[in-house]
Amino acid sequence: MQHRPQHQFSPEERASVYELMALRRDTRHFKAGSRVEPEQVQRLLQAAHQAPSVGLSQPWRLLRISSPELRQALALAVERERQATAEALNERREEFLRLKVEGMQDCAELWVIVLAPDDGTLFGRRTLPREMVLASVGCVVQNLWLAARAENLGLGWVSMFDPAEVAALLHLPAGALALGLLCLGPVDSFYPAPMLEMEGWRHARPLDEMFYTDRWPAHEESAPADLS
Amino acid sequence: MQHRPQHQFSPEERASVYELMALRRDTRHFKAGSRVEPEQVQRLLQAAHQAPSVGLSQPWRLLRISSPELRQALALAVERERQATAEALNERREEFLRLKVEGMQDCAELWVIVLAPDDGTLFGRRTLPREMVLASVGCVVQNLWLAARAENLGLGWVSMFDPAEVAALLHLPAGALALGLLCLGPVDSFYPAPMLEMEGWRHARPLDEMFYTDRWPAHEESAPADLS
Repeated sequence: MQHRPQHQFSPEERASVYELMALRRDTRHFKAGSRVEPEQVQRLLQAAHQAPSVGLSQPWRLLRISSPELRQALALAVERERQATAEALNERREEFLRLKVEGMQDCAELWVIVLAPDDGTLFGRRTLPREMVLASVGCVVQNLWLAARAENLGLGWVSMFDPAEVAALLHLPAGALALGLLCLGPVDSFYPAPMLEMEGWRHARPLDEMFYTDRWPAHEESAPADLS
Repeated sequence: MQHRPQHQFSPEERASVYELMALRRDTRHFKAGSRVEPEQVQRLLQAAHQAPSVGLSQPWRLLRISSPELRQALALAVERERQATAEALNERREEFLRLKVEGMQDCAELWVIVLAPDDGTLFGRRTLPREMVLASVGCVVQNLWLAARAENLGLGWVSMFDPAEVAALLHLPAGALALGLLCLGPVDSFYPAPMLEMEGWRHARPLDEMFYTDRWPAHEESAPADLS
């Protein structure tokens, strides 16, 4: 790729980026029996690697799951946690169980995003050590999500699992933490809106209730419980 | 903007997205006396709002700092933490103090990204409640970062501050946590590489040491301390 640090993005390029952000979806439906091309894998990994991180600490690793038995074990871990979540949701239990919450079986590729053991980086995280590495992992996955949609692939971040169970399956060392099972691959179609909105599970808060000036507003002093 | 959920991104659109990811930089040098146009602010906010979040919980708020006195107070908080970080770095103290770590005074816009009080969302975070909202905030800032570069603006995430001090300045309620002071605005030029690499502070780990298959590799059983 060309390296043009001073490149001025054109209105057309910008519109394309904004359309990408608008069309990116958390995906749970994949085309069974499909694959991701090796050159796509390389471009996706490059996008992950270009994500920012606090103090250039890059506090993440990606594991690609190649073993069908391991994928199956991870899918079982997710199913166990899905049932546990259903129980915790009480009155929304049945409604929750009707939702499709993961595409672990059908996705072409299954990757795991892992928080690496703390390397002691101080730059930018002396006061917020845990928070800043977790936010950095979010930046990595967002790059992957956007890159996947730009490749016309779906990506779903599955976080329903017992981290100890996943750590044992992946032989993670002490201090490492699996944060997401990333389901990736071709889809038959892309959702026109977030699936949780389409299914009536939850609706997004409008932007004007999320952007304030100079101080937190008095009317939002406490957060209402949202059992979902 | 058109809404074309099934849009297939072209190789040219994809190349533009990858160039954007490659050129995005954490920015500490801004053009003094410049401004961000209101329509750019709206597009940036829209990009933030389109970020994914665990269970559609949108666990973030953005505060725009309009008061010069408040900006000054926040800049002082950062300077205090910069000195505290320098002390903690021991033998790298002087080297650290020569780095430019923030552009709080010169940036056209100063925004604060805040983790909202926990609303009790269970979907996707029963086992990882804190981790998943923090990662979600990372997704929001990554969208902002990419959108800013697509607008030919710089953005810097400053996380050197005492969160209690910032919470008091912004009247944050219990449970809310400021995670970043986002310096945003026009720049004279964009860095050709991460500033911490250009200054010789730290070098990025290569991708092939971050992508594994099926299990954590035996050679990376523990993380070496990196006092930086």
